[in-house]
Amino acid sequence: MAEISDKTIARLSLYRRLLSDLLEDGQTQVRSHELATLANGSPAQVRRDLAEAVGCQGRPRQGYDVAGLFESIGAVLDGPSGENVALVGVGNLGRAVLAYLAGRRPGVNLKAAFDSDPAKVGQSWMGCPCHPDAAIPRVIREQSIRVAILAIPAASAQAVAEQLMDAGVTGLMNFAPVRLRARPGVFVENIDIAISLEKTAYFARQAAES
Amino acid sequence: MAEISDKTIARLSLYRRLLSDLLEDGQTQVRSHELATLANGSPAQVRRDLAEAVGCQGRPRQGYDVAGLFESIGAVLDGPSGENVALVGVGNLGRAVLAYLAGRRPGVNLKAAFDSDPAKVGQSWMGCPCHPDAAIPRVIREQSIRVAILAIPAASAQAVAEQLMDAGVTGLMNFAPVRLRARPGVFVENIDIAISLEKTAYFARQAAES
Repeated sequence: MAEISDKTIARLSLYRRLLSDLLEDGQTQVRSHELATLANGSPAQVRRDLAEAVGCQGRPRQGYDVAGLFESIGAVLDGPSGENVALVGVGNLGRAVLAYLAGRRPGVNLKAAFDSDPAKVGQSWMGCPCHPDAAIPRVIREQSIRVAILAIPAASAQAVAEQLMDAGVTGLMNFAPVRLRARPGVFVENIDIAISLEKTAYFARQAAES
Repeated sequence: MAEISDKTIARLSLYRRLLSDLLEDGQTQVRSHELATLANGSPAQVRRDLAEAVGCQGRPRQGYDVAGLFESIGAVLDGPSGENVALVGVGNLGRAVLAYLAGRRPGVNLKAAFDSDPAKVGQSWMGCPCHPDAAIPRVIREQSIRVAILAIPAASAQAVAEQLMDAGVTGLMNFAPVRLRARPGVFVENIDIAISLEKTAYFARQAAES
């Protein structure tokens, strides 16, 4: 299958969540325009995403089988066994992210947490053991972890990212307010809460004044 | 000045943060290529952003005055008095966001928090008083709040967003895992942690397998 874009993957993830809600409600069939309404998109885009990235065609008038489509999207997103994930930084934000994600994501296995604070090491957060930062190289390799969530201060983010990439991490979800220099091929998703808020404030003012 | 895009505003916010770091280090001048390196961008883009959106031209060989540029970007981003902001949902994630933002953002004034849990109402979080959800219309109007951060479950997000928009909010930063239906002109910044993680996991696997 052709390479799938960043934005398409985000939409597939959203469709899967919406399908999961429909499954819970006992709905068995869904048409593209219904999914499009739920996803704030267009029916044509839903059909294109599902045909090109997932290989699923809806049937005229009936649309898609909800359970089947849920599984098919999962096969694309999660691969055969899902991804092992580490969290670095068990502060307020890291703990909140852990609590938010724990147990919810079928394709994501939270395997390890790391913190530089000795008081946090050895504890378990949402079932996730917390190791010292010095154990990053060993634990990442031993547990075949390819995805890491960085919830640490800006000053230490690049050095920690280097350690993680050295140990085999190829995907970083970065909450640290700094632009990481990633190696070629390594995927970085920046979630910069302060920038998002400044952007929202700017456009809120534009909207109010227009 | 022409309308500034979403992405440009995000870059201006990043430049301002980088300038703030330079100011702390005592640096007085900065050239476009240095800012570009720090921002993971190109010098041409830095110069274009600063000329078109901020109206600042660097001087040959000297570049920009750090303090002046910091102020000029602030005038664009923050407007005359900054924006008043409310947080809805004082759970793990809401508290983490509050702790992360409190006192840090010059143009953003955290004025009020809201929660449906009576145990949280009446308390103060990072200096921010917590009101019951029922007080949303009154407090938003009284305090001229135009920006709201939604850190609540998906099920209640749309109804709360409607109340906020009714009361005059024109910018929503939405952490709830749901696509909000916003009114025309209202800006919505979605921060969907689960989708971001699934995306990171997908591309981490692609990178490891390529």
